[in-house]
Amino acid sequence: MDISKYAKREILQLAERPTPRTPIPRTGDIINLGAGDPDFNQPPIVAEWIKEAIEAGETHYTFQGHPEFKKTVAEYYSKYGVKIDPETQVIPTSGGGAALFLTLAATINPGDEVIIPDPAFQGYINPIKYFGGRIVRAKMRKTEDGYFRPNIENIEKAATEKTKLIIICNPDNPTGCIYTMEELKEIARIATEKDFLILSDEIYNEFTWMGKKHTAIATIKEAVDRTIIAMSLSKTFAWTGLRVGYIIAPKELAELIWRVPIGVSTIPVPIQIAAAKMLREGWRFHEEMKREYKKRIEHCVKRLNEIPNIKCVHPEATFYLFPDITETGIKSTEYTNKLFEEERVRVAAGSTFGEMGEGHIRIALVASIEKLDEAINRIERLHKKLKK
Amino acid sequence: MDISKYAKREILQLAERPTPRTPIPRTGDIINLGAGDPDFNQPPIVAEWIKEAIEAGETHYTFQGHPEFKKTVAEYYSKYGVKIDPETQVIPTSGGGAALFLTLAATINPGDEVIIPDPAFQGYINPIKYFGGRIVRAKMRKTEDGYFRPNIENIEKAATEKTKLIIICNPDNPTGCIYTMEELKEIARIATEKDFLILSDEIYNEFTWMGKKHTAIATIKEAVDRTIIAMSLSKTFAWTGLRVGYIIAPKELAELIWRVPIGVSTIPVPIQIAAAKMLREGWRFHEEMKREYKKRIEHCVKRLNEIPNIKCVHPEATFYLFPDITETGIKSTEYTNKLFEEERVRVAAGSTFGEMGEGHIRIALVASIEKLDEAINRIERLHKKLKK
Repeated sequence: MDISKYAKREILQLAERPTPRTPIPRTGDIINLGAGDPDFNQPPIVAEWIKEAIEAGETHYTFQGHPEFKKTVAEYYSKYGVKIDPETQVIPTSGGGAALFLTLAATINPGDEVIIPDPAFQGYINPIKYFGGRIVRAKMRKTEDGYFRPNIENIEKAATEKTKLIIICNPDNPTGCIYTMEELKEIARIATEKDFLILSDEIYNEFTWMGKKHTAIATIKEAVDRTIIAMSLSKTFAWTGLRVGYIIAPKELAELIWRVPIGVSTIPVPIQIAAAKMLREGWRFHEEMKREYKKRIEHCVKRLNEIPNIKCVHPEATFYLFPDITETGIKSTEYTNKLFEEERVRVAAGSTFGEMGEGHIRIALVASIEKLDEAINRIERLHKKLKK
Repeated sequence: MDISKYAKREILQLAERPTPRTPIPRTGDIINLGAGDPDFNQPPIVAEWIKEAIEAGETHYTFQGHPEFKKTVAEYYSKYGVKIDPETQVIPTSGGGAALFLTLAATINPGDEVIIPDPAFQGYINPIKYFGGRIVRAKMRKTEDGYFRPNIENIEKAATEKTKLIIICNPDNPTGCIYTMEELKEIARIATEKDFLILSDEIYNEFTWMGKKHTAIATIKEAVDRTIIAMSLSKTFAWTGLRVGYIIAPKELAELIWRVPIGVSTIPVPIQIAAAKMLREGWRFHEEMKREYKKRIEHCVKRLNEIPNIKCVHPEATFYLFPDITETGIKSTEYTNKLFEEERVRVAAGSTFGEMGEGHIRIALVASIEKLDEAINRIERLHKKLKK
């Protein structure tokens, strides 16, 4: 049966999603530092909150999201000085991925151009392609000391009459950089001049280091009317399997997004209620995780830099390391394949994130220091073999 | 700010989704029989199951759905004699609406024709339009004794070279009919001859009456390779606010649907686990609900038929009544507006479901017999006023 004749055209242009995709076991010999799934479990109070909500009969349709969730989101994000009307500006979504999908679903016509940095989170690619958007990469620049930074000149060059949207990931996955206010102002200026929208993926906003703070592009007056913020509890509260994200958008844009006929608001009501409580009361749990991530980052950066042919900067944010492995002389996919096949350590190849990611690997610090230490031992062993 | 220039074209053709949409209170003077949100709450065990799953650390990504959920779905549906491979054929979705959206998202190119009956669940309209599909209505026929039935001749006439898909709702919302095996065989024949897909929305499969049983089109050999089944726990287990649905599809079609880049599988993992348990152990709860619905149907059909100018057949399935109010001499929207404004009872106008629904109203029996009785008292009062 030739299934392709039944398919939406764009679907066939997407990389195949293998079914079934066997999950890599967390246990045993393999150390999986590939995906950004925090290794922390939920504090028991979350289970209690959900149970209470169900017992209270909170199991019926909420067509526009639970008011309490939307209210709490608006309160939470107001810490950046952005004023948000919960009723008209907050859209609950089933995680950050759905926030991205819905934003594109509401805005992209075939042929529209979408600017994304290079490197960038690989999850942006398929949704843009799916809606027939043309991806235009704006290469980041690499500073002398090895940091990636947004390159305003490249963004300016990438912007055309056809640009509908720029996606920025701030703080950035995979590079760990935080956009500065100056950089954001430049992006806001270009978006205003060329009249396109800004999708600001800020799901790592709470994981900042080195005394740096997250900067929200929606605080820039010029940008606020054209900025859609994609957020998620997945990283902040190790909430990945509970699927809670949200969009914050100007009223008119939020109305467009609400119109995407995806069905009833996609977060189960008791989970919206628990998520609201978490956004108010979950910060001690978050701080504990954050302290642990900080230890992991410091430990691993130090250890990685002791290995010849690897250079690793301390990220400004996120819980990823994005070390430079250029000096090994092999491509990042070859490197990650060898590391997995020979040493059973899964990390992501830098080229997954774009041309500019070549020569790098992304290590998600989602395991205990002991496990990370063992992973680095194995990386060290690989490097010794590569040298021969 | 002219927001339309930022919009995906098709979005602007959809009926506006008002934001915020104030939910109609269940309490107080208003009796809301508009939406199909069962008035039953979850048994406490559901809260326990979810709690246990969270405490067991089941809060991490499952990129392809939880294996236990998929396995249970395959086991459950096998009662119709359909063999399903859980790993490759079951896709968890955030309710039945998302199942519909994803199916269309994987298959519809602009200009493709989609056949839907008239009347039909109004929720099919916007997703088809959104993907640029052309809606072709196949009018049902009305039997002498007042039952709606699929009209094979009209389906045959509606099918063209451009037909990509037919959507059937079996058992049918709003008419309450169950497709017979003969009718399904005819539809399978037409779909095979004209080579289009069948989306079988079977979310009311468990609510059958009058000794009738649900018939699954996937049991027809000719149809099974081209049939996508959209299902949900929302009605079966009063699960609306917990958002669990699923798609069962042939492997190749399931692979297409998995490729829609909507993000990680959209049902929170602990809820997938609880849904699996419910599909195995929740049938006593279901039977209790079913007994109550049966009482409500019998009571209300009898009472409605005692009111002049209203005729109500006993549905073969679902918990909706779809009485004929033609003899009142007013349009169904005028009728429902009057009923709401003058008597504070919310029901759906038949014309919402298509031209053929004109002259009918849909009453969702999602309130206690006492409340339904009061609603019918008010309907009776309206009819007396209308007569003057």
